[in-house]
Amino acid sequence: MEIHQMWRDYPELNQDLIKVMQLIEDHIRIRDKRVNETLKDVIHAGGKLLRPAYTLLCSQIGAEYNKDKAIAIAAALETLHMATLIHDDVIDQADTRRGNATLQTKHDNKFAIYAGDYLFSICFSILAKHADSISQSMYNIRSIEKLLIGELDQLHSRFQPPNSVKSYLSRISGKTAQLFALSCYTGAVESKASKRQVRIAWNMGHYIGMAFQIIDDILDYQGYEEQIGKPVMADVQQGIYTLPLIYAMLANPDEVSEILANDKPYSKSDLDKLSAIIRKTKGIDKAKKLAERYTNKALRELEKLPNGHYKHHLYQLTSQMLKRTS
Amino acid sequence: MEIHQMWRDYPELNQDLIKVMQLIEDHIRIRDKRVNETLKDVIHAGGKLLRPAYTLLCSQIGAEYNKDKAIAIAAALETLHMATLIHDDVIDQADTRRGNATLQTKHDNKFAIYAGDYLFSICFSILAKHADSISQSMYNIRSIEKLLIGELDQLHSRFQPPNSVKSYLSRISGKTAQLFALSCYTGAVESKASKRQVRIAWNMGHYIGMAFQIIDDILDYQGYEEQIGKPVMADVQQGIYTLPLIYAMLANPDEVSEILANDKPYSKSDLDKLSAIIRKTKGIDKAKKLAERYTNKALRELEKLPNGHYKHHLYQLTSQMLKRTS
Repeated sequence: MEIHQMWRDYPELNQDLIKVMQLIEDHIRIRDKRVNETLKDVIHAGGKLLRPAYTLLCSQIGAEYNKDKAIAIAAALETLHMATLIHDDVIDQADTRRGNATLQTKHDNKFAIYAGDYLFSICFSILAKHADSISQSMYNIRSIEKLLIGELDQLHSRFQPPNSVKSYLSRISGKTAQLFALSCYTGAVESKASKRQVRIAWNMGHYIGMAFQIIDDILDYQGYEEQIGKPVMADVQQGIYTLPLIYAMLANPDEVSEILANDKPYSKSDLDKLSAIIRKTKGIDKAKKLAERYTNKALRELEKLPNGHYKHHLYQLTSQMLKRTS
Repeated sequence: MEIHQMWRDYPELNQDLIKVMQLIEDHIRIRDKRVNETLKDVIHAGGKLLRPAYTLLCSQIGAEYNKDKAIAIAAALETLHMATLIHDDVIDQADTRRGNATLQTKHDNKFAIYAGDYLFSICFSILAKHADSISQSMYNIRSIEKLLIGELDQLHSRFQPPNSVKSYLSRISGKTAQLFALSCYTGAVESKASKRQVRIAWNMGHYIGMAFQIIDDILDYQGYEEQIGKPVMADVQQGIYTLPLIYAMLANPDEVSEILANDKPYSKSDLDKLSAIIRKTKGIDKAKKLAERYTNKALRELEKLPNGHYKHHLYQLTSQMLKRTS
C-alpha cells in the first residue's frame, strides 16, 4: 500500500499509517465488487493522513502506549474526515457546476452521499469497538456532533460579506481545528495521559488545525497568482471568503464589496482585481503571519509535554506544515 | 407537539411517541436559529413513527421495562431513519429533476446533506448514552453499517431490468426490513428478554418490514391508477423496479422490457402501457398476497411472545398496516 511520500522521513510512522489505512480498508465490506473497489479507491485518493499521524504521535504522551488501539482510533477519525470530505465534495461540485465548471453525473452524487454515510457508520463502528469506556466514546461522539454543527453553521455564511477576522477564525475553529484537536486529544486520552497533558494535547491540536487551515486558504489564492493549474480561486467562487480576502476587505472595503456584489460566477476580470487588491494590501503576508503565530502557539504547548522521541516528530511535522506548498 | 393522528387510538403510545420526538428535538443544537428551526421542521415533517412505536412496544417483552431507555433507543433509531430519508430525498430529487419535475435549489441540497450527517451523529450520540454495554451498542452499530451497505448495493441495480422476485425481496430486506427488525430487536434486548424472545422479535420485525415495503411499493402504482395527485409511478421513473412490475415482467417479459428500454423519463404513454400490463397480469393482486403472507408470518411470531397488553397493540398495529392506503 502506498501513502503520501512525505512519510518516508518517518519510517515507523509510515508503517503505522499504512496499518491505519489497512484497517479502514478491512471495514469496507460491500457485496457489489465494483462499489467495493470504488470505495477503496476513494479512501486512497485522499489526503496526507496528517490527522491520524497526530493521533499516533499523541498516543505516546501517556504511560500506556497501546499501538493497536491508537491505530484503530486514528482510523476512526480518518474515516470521519473522509466521510465529511466526500459530502463536502458533493456540495462543492454542485457549486462549481453553477460556476459553469465541470459537470458531475448524478450517479456519482448518489454514490458519494451513500458512501459518505457508510463511512460515517464505519467510523462509529471502529470507535465503539475500541473506545476504553462508553463515557469516553461518548465524548468523542459529542465532539463529532459539534464538528457537524460547524458545517451547518457555515451554510448561511456563504456569500455573506467577509465581515471580520474573528468570524473567520471562529468558522475554521469549528471546521478544521476541532478535528485536529480531537485527533491529538483522543491519542493522549487513550494513552492514559494526565488531565493536564490531555488538555495540552487538545490545545496543541487546535492551534495546529488553525495554522493548517489558514495555510490551506492561502494556497487557494497563491494557486491563482501562480497559475499552477489549480482551481481558480475556488473558495471565492464558492462564496467562502477566507483570510487573505478578509484582510483585503478590511484595508479596502469599498472596492472589495463592489466586486463581491457582482454576478456569480465572478469574471476573470473580477478575480484579477481581487487578486491585485489582496497583493496591494498584503493580505497573504498578513495571513501567513497569523499562521506562524498559531504554529508557534502549538509548539509552545508541545514543549510542555513529556520528553520522548514522539515529541521530536511532532515538532518536525508541525513546523514543516507551515512551509508546505500543496 | 402533534404527531400522526393514527396514534389517537393508542393513548399511552401516543404520549410516549411525543416524548421520543421531544428527545430528538432536544438534541438539535445548532447555533444558527434559522438552521435550528428548519431542522426541527424537517424532523416533524415526517413519518408515522411506526419504527419507534415497535421499539416501544417490544420494550415490554422482557421483564425489565425501562420506559426512559426505550424512548431513547426509539429516538436514536428514528433519527437514523430520518437521516437516511433526508439523504434519499437529495438523491431522488436529483432524479426527478432529470425527469423534468420540480427544481431543487442547491441551498436545500447542501442543507440536506449536512443535516443528514448531523442527524447521524445524533443517532450515535443517543445510542452511546443509553446502550447497556459497549458490546450491545456495537451490535446496533454493525446493523446500521449493514443498513447503509444496503443503500450502496442498491445503487447499481437501478435501471437494471427487474429480474426476479428473489432479488427484489433481498433488496427490501436490506433496506426496510432490517430497520424494522432492528427496532423490534433493540426494544426486546433492552428489556432483558430471553435470547429466544429476542430472536422472535427480530424475525417479527423483519416480516413486518417486508410487508410494509411491499405495500409501500404497491401504493406507488395505485397512486398512478387512481390519479390521486401522488407522484406518477415515481419508483419506475427513478429506475426502481418493484414487485407489481416484476410480476408483470415475469408474465409478459417482452412487452415490459421493450417499454423499460425506452428513453427516460418515460412518457405518459409508456406509463399507461406499463400500468395496463400490471393490471392485466394482476401484478398488484399478487404483490398484495405476498404482503399478506409476510403479515401472517409476523403475527405467528408475535403469538409466541409472552402475554401482555403490548401484545394486543402489536397485533392491531401490524394487521392495520396491511390495509393502509397512504
